Amino acid sequence: MPEKYVYLFSEGESNMKELLGGKGANLAEMTRIGLKIPPGFTITTKACNLYRENKGKFPEGLWEEVKKNINLLEEQTGKGFGNPEKPLLVSVRSGAAHSMPGMMDTILNLGLNKDTLDGLATSTGNRRFALDCFRRLIQMFSDVVLNIELELFENQLKAIKKKREIELDVELDESALEELVETYLNIVEEHTGEPFPSEPDGQLEMAMKAVFDSWDNPRAKTYRELNDIAEELGTAVNVQAMVFGNTGSNSSTGVAFTRNPGSGTKEYYGEYLTNAQGEDVVAGIRTPKPVIEMESEMPKQFEELKKVYDTLETHYKDMQDFEFTIEEGNLYILQTRAGKRTAQAAIKIAVDMVDERLIDKKEAILMIDPHQIARLLHRRLDPTESVRPFGSGLPASPGAAVGKAVFYADDAVKWNDRGEDVILVREETRPDDIHGFFASQGILTARGGKTSHAAVVARGMGKPCVSGCEDLVIDTNARSFKIGEVEICEGDCITIDGTEGTVMEGEIATIAPELSAEAERVLKWADEIRTLGVWANASTPEGAKQARKFGAEGIGLCRTERMFNAPDRLPIVLDMILSDTEEDRKNALDRLMPFQREDFIEIFNIMGELPVVIRLLDIPLHEFLPSIEELNMDVQNLTRFVDWLKSMKVLSGAVNMVGLPDETQSVIHRLSKETEMLHEQDIAQKVLERKLTMLSKVRKMVEVNPMLGHRGVRLGITYPEIYRMQVRALYEAAATFIKEGKNIEPQIMIPQVCTTDELKWIYEQILEEKAMVETSQDIEIPIIFGTMIEVVRSCMRAGRIAEQVDFFSFGTNDLTQAVFSFSREDAENTFLPLYNERMILKHNPFEILDHKGVGRLMAITVRWGRKVKPELKIGICGEHGGEPSSIGFVHTIGIDYVSCSPYRVPVARFAAAQAALKKPEELSLIWGTY
Amino acid sequence: MPEKYVYLFSEGESNMKELLGGKGANLAEMTRIGLKIPPGFTITTKACNLYRENKGKFPEGLWEEVKKNINLLEEQTGKGFGNPEKPLLVSVRSGAAHSMPGMMDTILNLGLNKDTLDGLATSTGNRRFALDCFRRLIQMFSDVVLNIELELFENQLKAIKKKREIELDVELDESALEELVETYLNIVEEHTGEPFPSEPDGQLEMAMKAVFDSWDNPRAKTYRELNDIAEELGTAVNVQAMVFGNTGSNSSTGVAFTRNPGSGTKEYYGEYLTNAQGEDVVAGIRTPKPVIEMESEMPKQFEELKKVYDTLETHYKDMQDFEFTIEEGNLYILQTRAGKRTAQAAIKIAVDMVDERLIDKKEAILMIDPHQIARLLHRRLDPTESVRPFGSGLPASPGAAVGKAVFYADDAVKWNDRGEDVILVREETRPDDIHGFFASQGILTARGGKTSHAAVVARGMGKPCVSGCEDLVIDTNARSFKIGEVEICEGDCITIDGTEGTVMEGEIATIAPELSAEAERVLKWADEIRTLGVWANASTPEGAKQARKFGAEGIGLCRTERMFNAPDRLPIVLDMILSDTEEDRKNALDRLMPFQREDFIEIFNIMGELPVVIRLLDIPLHEFLPSIEELNMDVQNLTRFVDWLKSMKVLSGAVNMVGLPDETQSVIHRLSKETEMLHEQDIAQKVLERKLTMLSKVRKMVEVNPMLGHRGVRLGITYPEIYRMQVRALYEAAATFIKEGKNIEPQIMIPQVCTTDELKWIYEQILEEKAMVETSQDIEIPIIFGTMIEVVRSCMRAGRIAEQVDFFSFGTNDLTQAVFSFSREDAENTFLPLYNERMILKHNPFEILDHKGVGRLMAITVRWGRKVKPELKIGICGEHGGEPSSIGFVHTIGIDYVSCSPYRVPVARFAAAQAALKKPEELSLIWGTY
Repeated sequence: MPEKYVYLFSEGESNMKELLGGKGANLAEMTRIGLKIPPGFTITTKACNLYRENKGKFPEGLWEEVKKNINLLEEQTGKGFGNPEKPLLVSVRSGAAHSMPGMMDTILNLGLNKDTLDGLATSTGNRRFALDCFRRLIQMFSDVVLNIELELFENQLKAIKKKREIELDVELDESALEELVETYLNIVEEHTGEPFPSEPDGQLEMAMKAVFDSWDNPRAKTYRELNDIAEELGTAVNVQAMVFGNTGSNSSTGVAFTRNPGSGTKEYYGEYLTNAQGEDVVAGIRTPKPVIEMESEMPKQFEELKKVYDTLETHYKDMQDFEFTIEEGNLYILQTRAGKRTAQAAIKIAVDMVDERLIDKKEAILMIDPHQIARLLHRRLDPTESVRPFGSGLPASPGAAVGKAVFYADDAVKWNDRGEDVILVREETRPDDIHGFFASQGILTARGGKTSHAAVVARGMGKPCVSGCEDLVIDTNARSFKIGEVEICEGDCITIDGTEGTVMEGEIATIAPELSAEAERVLKWADEIRTLGVWANASTPEGAKQARKFGAEGIGLCRTERMFNAPDRLPIVLDMILSDTEEDRKNALDRLMPFQREDFIEIFNIMGELPVVIRLLDIPLHEFLPSIEELNMDVQNLTRFVDWLKSMKVLSGAVNMVGLPDETQSVIHRLSKETEMLHEQDIAQKVLERKLTMLSKVRKMVEVNPMLGHRGVRLGITYPEIYRMQVRALYEAAATFIKEGKNIEPQIMIPQVCTTDELKWIYEQILEEKAMVETSQDIEIPIIFGTMIEVVRSCMRAGRIAEQVDFFSFGTNDLTQAVFSFSREDAENTFLPLYNERMILKHNPFEILDHKGVGRLMAITVRWGRKVKPELKIGICGEHGGEPSSIGFVHTIGIDYVSCSPYRVPVARFAAAQAALKKPEELSLIWGTY
Repeated sequence: MPEKYVYLFSEGESNMKELLGGKGANLAEMTRIGLKIPPGFTITTKACNLYRENKGKFPEGLWEEVKKNINLLEEQTGKGFGNPEKPLLVSVRSGAAHSMPGMMDTILNLGLNKDTLDGLATSTGNRRFALDCFRRLIQMFSDVVLNIELELFENQLKAIKKKREIELDVELDESALEELVETYLNIVEEHTGEPFPSEPDGQLEMAMKAVFDSWDNPRAKTYRELNDIAEELGTAVNVQAMVFGNTGSNSSTGVAFTRNPGSGTKEYYGEYLTNAQGEDVVAGIRTPKPVIEMESEMPKQFEELKKVYDTLETHYKDMQDFEFTIEEGNLYILQTRAGKRTAQAAIKIAVDMVDERLIDKKEAILMIDPHQIARLLHRRLDPTESVRPFGSGLPASPGAAVGKAVFYADDAVKWNDRGEDVILVREETRPDDIHGFFASQGILTARGGKTSHAAVVARGMGKPCVSGCEDLVIDTNARSFKIGEVEICEGDCITIDGTEGTVMEGEIATIAPELSAEAERVLKWADEIRTLGVWANASTPEGAKQARKFGAEGIGLCRTERMFNAPDRLPIVLDMILSDTEEDRKNALDRLMPFQREDFIEIFNIMGELPVVIRLLDIPLHEFLPSIEELNMDVQNLTRFVDWLKSMKVLSGAVNMVGLPDETQSVIHRLSKETEMLHEQDIAQKVLERKLTMLSKVRKMVEVNPMLGHRGVRLGITYPEIYRMQVRALYEAAATFIKEGKNIEPQIMIPQVCTTDELKWIYEQILEEKAMVETSQDIEIPIIFGTMIEVVRSCMRAGRIAEQVDFFSFGTNDLTQAVFSFSREDAENTFLPLYNERMILKHNPFEILDHKGVGRLMAITVRWGRKVKPELKIGICGEHGGEPSSIGFVHTIGIDYVSCSPYRVPVARFAAAQAALKKPEELSLIWGTY
């Protein structure tokens, strides 16, 4: 039996997408369930692929089958293809299994020529309408089939409108259109050397080939590569009888949604235009009316339409976005697809459909895009606070943020690495500020609108942004800014509200976004379904509170360096770093210990008996110190100031700094905020000396590649007293709970490990501290010991390392840097955007986990680690832990839990549930040939 | 049958090392082949292990067996253990399969007590001798068995010498020794609460236990860990009858080598002392005589000794280092082992033994330590050059070196990265200069002797060093140094000769070390045996010449950035970098192209049809620019100079710079060397402007982690014109040879690749350039295309990447950095030395390839790459390519060739042969559980 290449809509159904394409399968499905679809047929993807294999020849029998089906269409419509009296017109559309930009889309009105034009004019009694149809056919056909520049036609259209002194296309009368059609036909003949194809069969054959060929156009190829769509799928071609909504007042055209796509409410939502075509709706010439008005205007058709709403939803079990045309009172459905919706609507629709027993909970989960959950989660100002903005700009990216003002992206990174929350304040931002965005809580700019760089990037990252705050004046020398009379210096705290576009002094309490009742219900269902644990990265009591509120099952990463940075501690930390002897260093650490203990107590208080993973100090010590550049500036200006104080013989008392350069005055002004009485000569001298000491220390400590430097466990081994202090603080904190009978198990995690001996060495130190606390407090403390897996060598040694620990936690940020040999800060400012643009890398691997490289290494690590210790707990605590596709991947390779920022916890809970429901990515992809 | 724990020397042989230990097996072997060995027996390692399992109890039957064997000794010697008339004295020594520091070594004279002392005195007629033996026994036994501090005994010895006003131990007379023995016995009783064990059996039992216990002492354990020696091997104990070389003029003791260990000549080499003990030879009290003098002094014994020379060499088939004692005319051999020898000797001995048909070529290869080959390969001054040193110091590390003077380790690295050869000139060096050593051709210091830091480190690295050049005065401000009247500024070329300790101005031709005829023969044998290819890293014609001379089979890494740095090119390179438009950049590149083409032509001329792998530009562009710090200094001082020129109204003419600060004068002095007529105001202004442009460019280009930055293929993709210029130069160079009918196949290698799409992208560019050259020259150029594997992700994607290329070349330097997340420069200055010291890492992984981490990743990569493309050629071109143990490893995992510095090529040829001969490291170690 010969291959069947053509399916009438009445022969297909929705599960034939691979063969008929998405559009064809849906048209067939709607036909099958009894909706009124203009008749037509689909030419299969198989035919397309044979055509491509044959280098542009139809497979044998295809054309005959098409002709036969055209005959069937003629029978169904009572019209004739090329029949000059009752001409059958058809549309030709591509339709692959996945919708794909770049492919040929649509040609309407195929079958028109000079002869059938007359027939159409006569049969509709509307010659102008017929001419307009023909004009459109010539234009579309020339563009997509004949490859003639569209502009040539547009220019003629403009010329004729000018000549006739009219503005809109619809004002063209019959004679104008007659003239235009002649002109168009001439253009075609000039450019192709042949007249416009007048035979309907010829038109159809050429159109089919154009659709097939468009599968291989560069934009479509690129899109497929980007989206992992197989080359060999091919596209189908849909040929459908035309219907017209513009044949008179008994015709109309419209777009409908089965529920409100903004709120999710179940209602008859949509718009329509009487006596119009789809294109007219898009062109916005007349304002469409709400569908509900049809009730009075076309009550019979509205009743029919209501049934369509119900039929489509009941059938597709999702909110549908469909197009319809009423031709002479007859309602036709032209297309349907799942409707786009807001995050709120998505959740409401899913929950309502479960309540309506239309779908079950699993289907509800799969219906929501996890990124939509993220959009619900912006912080906002605490409404109980009284807010007095001192500046305002554009609400460029929603949410409220609090942080210390910094003026350079580099500073934002540096301060953030030290654990400070910062707001990046800039005249305007540029692509090379991008690392500053990552490091900031929010962005404030003096210039730029809602589509400025700052606004676009901030929205992309979900960070609050106020842009175009025009009163804002930055003094980069003094490192301060003014809005009106208010001056804010570097390091001063400010609050911005990107939802309102306002700027406030100081720290204003913000509150976490509250999830709607529907969202909470969906997340509960997600929790029932998912097998992956969801923990949070939280280093402060506030973070811990948020984490619990959003349903985190533990803290997977508590960064202890954040605790070193509070204003009451940083001076002690500096003392520690500036120490020349181990004894001095220990003294400073002893002063630091009670602070750290209190932090741990607070966090345990919040987390109760949930697991809390404490990561010992990771960042290089020099990151706590100012930069060489800054210290140089301070030293120069302080020296000048001290000399000036001496020359003025000022020992004490207020000074006005007359005669000192502006720069010096700025620096002294800033330093005065840190040190009182700086104007006293001996105090100024002391401050100068300390700055000199710091400068010399920074000079010694500065590293060529700090990312690969003296940090993490390497610090723990060279300065064991630091880790010991942290462990003591942790166990003393734990002791207070253990004494109360609480089942608390603090987990210790070591960063940057590359070999088992590092772990052994540190473990011995921990045991000693543990024993001391146990003895002094007369209790027993359980020990849970783990390692970050963020150094490639630790992956290679996973089996041996597993012997030493209770858990692994993948640090995918650093691991990604090491696997790619990309420095994130540098890459995102230099080549990475170009790499993404040219699709050398499809994604930014710091945002979406690189499955094939980093992911493969992780899969190997999990396998080797579990081979030695099957009970090994494995988590991931990089930023990827809150990114849906990354969550899907780590679920597949057998990770136990993800840990992410508290605000991503709901996203992660949700994405984890989807991961559990979806067919797991084939492990053979990971373990296969490559 | 009960386990046999004790073997008489006559019962064992050399292949029983595991059971009897190395020493025991050798003593047995010598006994077996008829040499006269004082009788004795060995207690097995098995006994040791049972003792350790029993927690310090001898296994059943052991002691009885020892006693039985003591009886046999008594029979053989005619003496009695504890017999007061004819006492048998024995030595007790440990002896594991591998010699191991930290273990108990030796106790002599066991069996002595007050009673047997008298017997010994009587039977030898020498009471002083007997007393001295007893004193030594007490001292050794107390130290190693009873754990009494040796110092206590030494103090008493000193006291008695002081009291008797004598200087040397040998001057102690009988009465002094009587007194000393009493004092010693009292010390023992005081410290142990018990008298010194007088029973010989007791002494023996305690000594045996001390040997067994010493297996588990911390130093021995650490040593085993360091050298991968299994814990469960255990140690044997050797008990042997004492013989004495100090009983009179018919006795003597000596050490002999079967060949001259300095030259390798076959002769009777060795020294002896009449009437002496081994210890006396070591103490250097009397000067020993050459063995050859025995011919006249003790002709009979000399004849016997000559037979021992022959017997040992014939038997062991290696040069032996043995100890002998002649007691009353009777020659005894006490120990033999393979003798240490110089590099020259090692080679001569191996070659001679092959000629003597004592060994075959394979055995000869295995007899030589590859590190010895390296020692033969120091460059020296061309003897045809007339050399006039202007300074001299100590010849601290041999070889001659030429380079530009730099004064800071950081500068050495920076200049070297740009392809400059430098000599690091320092007052003295410190550990944090180490990266400068790597980057320099040689080191010159003003202070420090032959064991100074500079000397030791330089020798370790095989770099020439002149230390302690006391006339050398460095002016760090001016960046210059003076010796006498000669001033050398930074960047000026100097030559040092570390063999002579001299310093010369300018570049003096050096010549490659010439290998001796013997060395050449050995290397030829190595070539016959090895399967691994040996190529060289060479980026200049000189390097290529050396490479061929040393037998390289190709160039595995030609670093093209080195070609950018020659003085005639750097200004063009700077123009290229400072370009603001692609067009300007292309113009500069067009000017650069002919230089690069000439370089390639020269190299091809030298290499003929051997493969040459050209690596396209790797280093970040900012490395061609000076540092921000340097530019800042230049700008400041140039500004000052220009202002001064203006204020002086000097437009032209010589200026004396009166009134300008020293620093400014220095800078202008330096810059004047680059730019003539700098004293003309408008020229100075232009130089200043260029420096300002450079400063602003460097500021923009500077990276947080340059190692992970905008470099390698990332540059090739962001600035494709650079790679295209390089490819054009290469193919145009190749064309000239292809036209002559030469079979030349230039290979192109891309650095820093992380994904296949980078390779595809670059490959297309290469094909375009290739086509252009082919068309314009009317030829066909073959293309061989490969990638560095130095980014971890490329390992993970090895299969896919293999599809795109003809070859892989592991860049193990960068790969090691990425796998460990160590920045080499930073790590070697901070934590890495401590890591090595604490044995958290056994080696510096930048020197010796880390088999378990980096190596494992390489093994995976090779496997995955070859799975997809079995014919894939795989090389390694990191520094490890010239390191013997690394070569052994890469041979095992199936690498095709190593590429190393030309001077390491002979080492690599040799190590590759050894790798082929040795039992391959078990791949299960790599693919096993971990």
